[in-house]
Amino acid sequence: MNNEKNNETFSTAAFHRPELRRIKLELSYDGTNYNGWQRQKDVPSVQETLETTLGRILGKPVSVTGSGRTDAGVHALKQVAAFSTESRLDTGVFQRALNGFLPHDIRVLRVEEVPFCFHPIANAIAKRYRYLIDDNRPSFPLTRNYCWVYREPLDLRTMQQAASFLLGEHDFACFQTQGSPRKTTVRTVSDVLVERIHDPNGLYPPLIRIEIEANGFLYNMMRTIAGTLTLLGVEGRRGRSKPERMKEIIESQNRALAGPTAPPHALYLVDVRFGVCGL
Amino acid sequence: MNNEKNNETFSTAAFHRPELRRIKLELSYDGTNYNGWQRQKDVPSVQETLETTLGRILGKPVSVTGSGRTDAGVHALKQVAAFSTESRLDTGVFQRALNGFLPHDIRVLRVEEVPFCFHPIANAIAKRYRYLIDDNRPSFPLTRNYCWVYREPLDLRTMQQAASFLLGEHDFACFQTQGSPRKTTVRTVSDVLVERIHDPNGLYPPLIRIEIEANGFLYNMMRTIAGTLTLLGVEGRRGRSKPERMKEIIESQNRALAGPTAPPHALYLVDVRFGVCGL
Repeated sequence: MNNEKNNETFSTAAFHRPELRRIKLELSYDGTNYNGWQRQKDVPSVQETLETTLGRILGKPVSVTGSGRTDAGVHALKQVAAFSTESRLDTGVFQRALNGFLPHDIRVLRVEEVPFCFHPIANAIAKRYRYLIDDNRPSFPLTRNYCWVYREPLDLRTMQQAASFLLGEHDFACFQTQGSPRKTTVRTVSDVLVERIHDPNGLYPPLIRIEIEANGFLYNMMRTIAGTLTLLGVEGRRGRSKPERMKEIIESQNRALAGPTAPPHALYLVDVRFGVCGL
Repeated sequence: MNNEKNNETFSTAAFHRPELRRIKLELSYDGTNYNGWQRQKDVPSVQETLETTLGRILGKPVSVTGSGRTDAGVHALKQVAAFSTESRLDTGVFQRALNGFLPHDIRVLRVEEVPFCFHPIANAIAKRYRYLIDDNRPSFPLTRNYCWVYREPLDLRTMQQAASFLLGEHDFACFQTQGSPRKTTVRTVSDVLVERIHDPNGLYPPLIRIEIEANGFLYNMMRTIAGTLTLLGVEGRRGRSKPERMKEIIESQNRALAGPTAPPHALYLVDVRFGVCGL
């Protein structure tokens, strides 16, 4: 999981008091103006903004747990978070109050009461991330802050073939940025998609969309995969298509063989799926 | 026309020197960081940025004329501009050099040599503007800087019926912001479109798109039309649908009866069409 450390301890449920309700939030946010999800000293974070706003509504400090710790500049189409409260406020009132007080770059899509055992990290069984690349020449100015404007056209077919090697259970150590030790670097990728998307209304140009669903992501894994696929896409375009390089890179378990860490502003947490008690 | 005053005089052609080439540019830009198209003292403008970059490439000052003077914060999917130069540079080289030096929020889509008589203002016979509204609850955080996030849902049908009264030749004085006197406030609207657009890829939410094509736009005309249609859409949603108010507002020629001037960041210059010598 992307998010094994957290402010809220897993033992909360052990001290369950019957007057406490567990509230699940689905959020969408533009990560541009935040230093990521996680509360940090002296810099704005989505978690802190949410906790401050909830504190204003409830009149006391609130601790919120998010299911994925998105990095600085990373967006969320659907992030899931939860908190416990004694408040009897109706969930619809919670949602309207939150959207009334929160800045417009964070929106609460859904508020529901869940069983007290619900934990956004422990119960998450899969996450889905999206990465967007504009490889058009010239690039499209209006979406430049929400996709990676790449300096040359990429070969989609090479990228698709390379991406297929990601499917299944592998040791993904090659895609992990150092400094965030995990017990294991083995993860299972359950879905991989690389395609060119078109907007019939012309609000964005033809973009390359990479989507990956896995039972967990190592630190910077999605961005390093995007960087590696892009590198192979460049080679493919130059007539040196070698999609099977992806297999070699994974097997090497060597970060130095993978591509660069692609920038954060093109990365989106798309969805979180839950198992037991996850509703 | 939106743009009757200009830095470059119409008489340029009268002093045509055979060694001068006339170059037409098609541009797209994100207006967020500019104080509009037109060069102004001490604030960044698209025109100034373009002229400075062209000056760097050509090694001497260049004056560029744009066909529409977009306001601060307004975007362009296609703006047309032109300049005269002695340079023999290939148009493809011009385009690559411009896109190499310009900031990423301005892109040159096309460069071509045109007859010397070409003038982006005098030869423009129609312009098309787009206005985007997000009336979803909750709104969508990722597109909030590129559409008008409206606080309540709008009735599309009322807006469509109201918009139909705009078609044809009318005195549009009611939609003109004061302080920009014109010889006449009569303009001809040749196309009006109000629809809800959907993105199959989910990069933006269902938005209301207003598009108007006319032989010219008065100062703030498009934004005031958007504000008026929105007001009628609110009324429609509340069960007080009166699309024919649009006809009364136009006939009144009274700005006070029209709606508010909608914000600039949701407005796009979509296209400019040319007549004689316009290619």
